[in-house]
Amino acid sequence: MSASASSFSSVPAPPMRWDGWGDPDRETVLSDAMLGLIRDALGVRGDARSRHTPDDVVVPDCRLTDDDLAELTGIVGEDHVSRAPVDRLLRAAGRSTPDLLRRRATTQSAPDAVVVPGSTDEVAAVVAWCADADVAVVTYGGGTAVTGGLAPLAGGHRAVISLDMRRFDGLVDLDEVSRIAALGAGVTGPRAEELLAEHGLSLGHFPQSFRYATVGGFAVTRSSGQASAGYGRFDEMVVGLTLVTPRGVLRLGPVERSAAGPDLRQLVLGSEGTFGVVTEVSLRVHPVPEAVVAQAWRLPDFASGAAAVRTVARSDARPTVLRMSDEAETAVNLASPGAIGADGSPGGCLVITRFEGTERDCADRRARVADLLTEAGATDLGPEPAQAWAHGRFDAPYLRDALLAIGVGCETVETATTWSGVVSLRTAVSDALTTALGSDDGPFAASPAMVLCHISHTYATAASLYFTVVYRLDERDAVGQWEAAKEAASRAIVDHRATITHHHAIGTDHRAHLAAEIGDLGVQVLRAVKATLDPSGVMNPGKLIP
Amino acid sequence: MSASASSFSSVPAPPMRWDGWGDPDRETVLSDAMLGLIRDALGVRGDARSRHTPDDVVVPDCRLTDDDLAELTGIVGEDHVSRAPVDRLLRAAGRSTPDLLRRRATTQSAPDAVVVPGSTDEVAAVVAWCADADVAVVTYGGGTAVTGGLAPLAGGHRAVISLDMRRFDGLVDLDEVSRIAALGAGVTGPRAEELLAEHGLSLGHFPQSFRYATVGGFAVTRSSGQASAGYGRFDEMVVGLTLVTPRGVLRLGPVERSAAGPDLRQLVLGSEGTFGVVTEVSLRVHPVPEAVVAQAWRLPDFASGAAAVRTVARSDARPTVLRMSDEAETAVNLASPGAIGADGSPGGCLVITRFEGTERDCADRRARVADLLTEAGATDLGPEPAQAWAHGRFDAPYLRDALLAIGVGCETVETATTWSGVVSLRTAVSDALTTALGSDDGPFAASPAMVLCHISHTYATAASLYFTVVYRLDERDAVGQWEAAKEAASRAIVDHRATITHHHAIGTDHRAHLAAEIGDLGVQVLRAVKATLDPSGVMNPGKLIP
Repeated sequence: MSASASSFSSVPAPPMRWDGWGDPDRETVLSDAMLGLIRDALGVRGDARSRHTPDDVVVPDCRLTDDDLAELTGIVGEDHVSRAPVDRLLRAAGRSTPDLLRRRATTQSAPDAVVVPGSTDEVAAVVAWCADADVAVVTYGGGTAVTGGLAPLAGGHRAVISLDMRRFDGLVDLDEVSRIAALGAGVTGPRAEELLAEHGLSLGHFPQSFRYATVGGFAVTRSSGQASAGYGRFDEMVVGLTLVTPRGVLRLGPVERSAAGPDLRQLVLGSEGTFGVVTEVSLRVHPVPEAVVAQAWRLPDFASGAAAVRTVARSDARPTVLRMSDEAETAVNLASPGAIGADGSPGGCLVITRFEGTERDCADRRARVADLLTEAGATDLGPEPAQAWAHGRFDAPYLRDALLAIGVGCETVETATTWSGVVSLRTAVSDALTTALGSDDGPFAASPAMVLCHISHTYATAASLYFTVVYRLDERDAVGQWEAAKEAASRAIVDHRATITHHHAIGTDHRAHLAAEIGDLGVQVLRAVKATLDPSGVMNPGKLIP
Repeated sequence: MSASASSFSSVPAPPMRWDGWGDPDRETVLSDAMLGLIRDALGVRGDARSRHTPDDVVVPDCRLTDDDLAELTGIVGEDHVSRAPVDRLLRAAGRSTPDLLRRRATTQSAPDAVVVPGSTDEVAAVVAWCADADVAVVTYGGGTAVTGGLAPLAGGHRAVISLDMRRFDGLVDLDEVSRIAALGAGVTGPRAEELLAEHGLSLGHFPQSFRYATVGGFAVTRSSGQASAGYGRFDEMVVGLTLVTPRGVLRLGPVERSAAGPDLRQLVLGSEGTFGVVTEVSLRVHPVPEAVVAQAWRLPDFASGAAAVRTVARSDARPTVLRMSDEAETAVNLASPGAIGADGSPGGCLVITRFEGTERDCADRRARVADLLTEAGATDLGPEPAQAWAHGRFDAPYLRDALLAIGVGCETVETATTWSGVVSLRTAVSDALTTALGSDDGPFAASPAMVLCHISHTYATAASLYFTVVYRLDERDAVGQWEAAKEAASRAIVDHRATITHHHAIGTDHRAHLAAEIGDLGVQVLRAVKATLDPSGVMNPGKLIP
């Protein structure tokens, strides 16, 4: 069955480009300087390949019967179920580089139907039906997953549906005194800010996926945004959750802290749809900040820079945004996207800070951070580099699309470790990637690799490391080529007792490494929780739990 | 078998008074003013009853055989096992008021033996032996539990041992760069500060139980200390844990934050010994503060005071300690312990703050808090009331012993709720206690009740409420009298969707109310986790999980 026939579509399409990032009408054109750099460094010619349209792709026949569809339609209504190939295809993948490379195939797997429920009760009925009917459920939010969480795996069940949460798009409840907002799981980042701004409030969660990703996705993947130093990780914002499981509804919260046994919210956070479907999330919100102050600095090198950032992260003057690029990333960051590859880096490591709050607080914290960084040897670069970063901060994935089109691989690896391990782990992961991609011992053609790194999330005892890798695709097996490099990076992470993922979740891609982190006994605990909430195993099989 | 025969003791006694709080040599003498107040308000005469010694008490025969004892001795060594009645009796209870009232009986239940392991491997061997031999395990730290967590319940197994963690008393590891200290589970509050101070570091966890309670107890009860506004709750300090279960050892952490699935540390925190034994905890530590600034204020009444404290709690200038007493507690707090009952309260609600950090930070934060509170109508009371509070902050339980001795009940109830519910919940709990204790409809003699309340733990969206209740004991069934009052307070808490405990844990006393908070499905999740880690159910049966 061809995925063409868009006319069969009966539910709205996700808003994002089907085989790449973001706005389908937006094209990123690479500058001549950048093309030159890529030609020199990677030896690619720079000719862009043509893209498929969904019409070019064949998906397997739907394994659900007419009776199945009738029953699902009976729960959510006729307008909210589709087995049109195009609807299924559009929800068949997330946005990792392997996901996008797989979009080049002319035959692709896909969920057997798309179901778009409108209430917690409807989700409960759909999930109960699926458990009974031996049909797997992949919950779909913004489609921005990068570790395989959206792969349409039936996991031995007779079919798999995509449960699209787009209709959970409202502000369910607002307690202005307590500053708690209950949002539907399908609310996107911009929609959350829009709903809250009507009340002078803000959530403050700005991951790179902000424009498309949803509250439910943020929760089940333990997302962390660029302002995490100021407003916390998403899991720290959550005070309550509604989880619909095949065994019933679990409602947790909304009291922020308690000693009433283990904190079960922390089991739902990070559960990636494997225990059930999060339909509603109660979140700590704050007033829209009255002032924003941006400020950039340069530190001489990664090791001294990491030490300086550590001091700032632990201070009471902590910025709302605090990030530091290594030397290689600094060279790219300081240029505008059009000028990447041109000369313009001052060298060293770029530190971006941003302060949000009252005028007085921002000025005060900025001054105190300036003292700390100056003492650590920093040079003041003024606000411009920090403003430029803020301007382009959600756009990197567009650049990746342009690179992939000309045969350049571009993917990220992220982790976190204790402060004492930050420098050695950066070296180990960077070396692992460079060595793996540069080797011609294996089945893949050797490629030089550019590895950029930054620290973007800081804690009292730990920090994240985020690597961007640019290399020449081996078009014979581009997915396999990356998987080999990723495996090398993952081994370096595990060997350092760092976490396999700081904010991208486990999905399919990190699943083999979870036991190294939580032990076999930890895995057995997750399996026991799953068996209790999802005894038939229909909830997002093949993800998270080994 | 009499618990006398102290000569049979083969393991060191816990350092605390066996039937009351703290230092056995310390006596709190009630002032004439206080005695007068109590006589007037409660109608008690003030004659002190005599106390039992352990020699007066009979405990049941030990249900373990000589072979059992030989096997335990084989694991931990001869000096570390005891079935001496006195050793068993001393570990038979925590320090709630009902626990102390039950100490008046001449026959008391007790664990069948005391085992004092010296390593994680020994704990693993003991726990495995117990699971195999059908013997329950109650882990014993400082003996300060106040919700029944130490009750020597065999839970249908053939015997129960007390596993005393006192030998886990060292600094296991210190990462000074990351500021992570791994401490043995038996390390007490003062011992932790002493071990860390050698490195210029501090933990900053100061609950009322500080002098006796242990790191392991803090972890498994989700303890929260008086400086939680500055250094966080204990669960927020934990970055790693070692949990020994009958199914093996679970090692979690030490990376502070991760997206690698659900946070299993948050399942161990609050598990109250029902999943296994915590032997080691890795904790975030900080430098010993160079400055401490204390400052007190008065706010007109509880409602306006709570609103002012909320504003301060959300500000960047947040104090390290932030607490506010209601009008009734203010009258008591402002007097020195010897002057309780004397006139000396300025009226209104006392706010205590304390700032710890650098000289500059403390001065700056104090000034900003002064601005916020002044704007809210606060009167500056200077540092003295805050210093007086700090001086006596661990001593309230001594006062309780003196009151109980003259027939005056004194117990606490604590909870937390969202800020919007703080005022109404205070009224509801206070009314419930006053009504329940004052009623002569039931089996107990009516007593006037003094209910004091304070906010001592604050969050962006929520705050704790801590009630102290003083009333006349009905000596015919003093335990039953309190249980009826407690049940009334608990119902008020549950009806308000507040948490049944903010920092005292579930134990036996809150167990009936846990399902109201996490749902039947939440209870099933806890049972499933327990069945995985402790399939024979020997770990602290009858606690936490309904």
